[in-house]
Amino acid sequence: MVKYLNQTESINVDKDLFEKYKFSVDQLMELAGQSCAIAIARTYPSLKNSTQKILICCGPGNNGGDGLVCARHLKQFGYLPEIYYPKKTNNTLYENLLHQCIENDIPLLEDNVEYIASKQLHQFGLIVDAIFGFSFKPPVRDTFIPIICLLQNTTIPICSIDIPSGWNVEEGPPTEGGIKPEMLISLTAPKLCAKKFEGKYHYLGGRFVPKKLNEAYNLNLPEYPETDSILLLN
Amino acid sequence: MVKYLNQTESINVDKDLFEKYKFSVDQLMELAGQSCAIAIARTYPSLKNSTQKILICCGPGNNGGDGLVCARHLKQFGYLPEIYYPKKTNNTLYENLLHQCIENDIPLLEDNVEYIASKQLHQFGLIVDAIFGFSFKPPVRDTFIPIICLLQNTTIPICSIDIPSGWNVEEGPPTEGGIKPEMLISLTAPKLCAKKFEGKYHYLGGRFVPKKLNEAYNLNLPEYPETDSILLLN
Repeated sequence: MVKYLNQTESINVDKDLFEKYKFSVDQLMELAGQSCAIAIARTYPSLKNSTQKILICCGPGNNGGDGLVCARHLKQFGYLPEIYYPKKTNNTLYENLLHQCIENDIPLLEDNVEYIASKQLHQFGLIVDAIFGFSFKPPVRDTFIPIICLLQNTTIPICSIDIPSGWNVEEGPPTEGGIKPEMLISLTAPKLCAKKFEGKYHYLGGRFVPKKLNEAYNLNLPEYPETDSILLLN
Repeated sequence: MVKYLNQTESINVDKDLFEKYKFSVDQLMELAGQSCAIAIARTYPSLKNSTQKILICCGPGNNGGDGLVCARHLKQFGYLPEIYYPKKTNNTLYENLLHQCIENDIPLLEDNVEYIASKQLHQFGLIVDAIFGFSFKPPVRDTFIPIICLLQNTTIPICSIDIPSGWNVEEGPPTEGGIKPEMLISLTAPKLCAKKFEGKYHYLGGRFVPKKLNEAYNLNLPEYPETDSILLLN
């Protein structure tokens, strides 16, 4: 059975991919975000050529970068993503990822969460949670409390990238509340908190792990079918 | 009908992708090489879990980089790629792409072409031609004459990435000889020489062109099906 990683293992696997296997962040983020877009498109085909949009909520780190890449691929697939990105990361990679989205005619929502909730939320058929990833340590910073609250209280289905945001990476949801995604896409390998996931669709994505790395951490990754970059785990 | 680009248009589209749309080479090379691997896997499924290997011939530029990425994804898909890369490019991106291949247990053939032809060639069921791309101007440099000759004379099927190497990007094959690929994967948009392609399979790959760029150059790109990154043109 596939291994569920603790936070230290997740950080070390990631470190190895970049330092030992010498992947660039650009490369792996492109593959990760693309796999998320494919999983979403397969799971929610009715959102294609529909008036219902997809809200992509991006955090300040790599999880948010995966979200920006996911948004761009969803647009290529014929979906209508819009981006909420309250704390933009000030480096070339992230600036370029956002620029690519804007040049692909993906709207960037600049309003505050209260306005989004009251005036815009009804337009969305799905929310992608790309806020926090496997390096998250509580508590949630003030900037992100409103959007996490929105995700906790909405009835719109949520797809979380790698970690349901606000969850403890190992323990799962906080004792009170916590978001309840309908879909979770574990990237590289699932993290321990995914054992507490009770939604309908749990995918594995990001088909780029070298065999040596799989073996070094006993990841025991399942075989992806054909040329697919995603795999339904449940 | 999809537009076939001349050399100047090809160079300008590429320039726009990097300068105007701010993609990184890492990003687009990853998507391009991945789309080549998917097209090859779909076209030659019998090479999977077979003893027949795939020889990936890489040139010194971006076409060679696409070949390195393609090799890595083919390995992930369960194929047996081996790399011939006679003139390695001395920059971090290419060194890392090669390193990723080696760490994915893809052999690098260090022998000369004569040795490969006499001792190793019979093991290959397909040759991927990733030697020259759309910026190629004749004549072929001395280093690459032996491998181009091998490709001209072999009966093993050849898959060319973007341009059959040695062909004029606009005019097609040289008046005498020239390689005759069975498969061609045009990246971004086909180049004029693709009109002279007489092989069995012509794919379009690299699903990353923003709508604005498609319109600015009247590329008239066909719609890719579903979440596919490749499209059979013929």
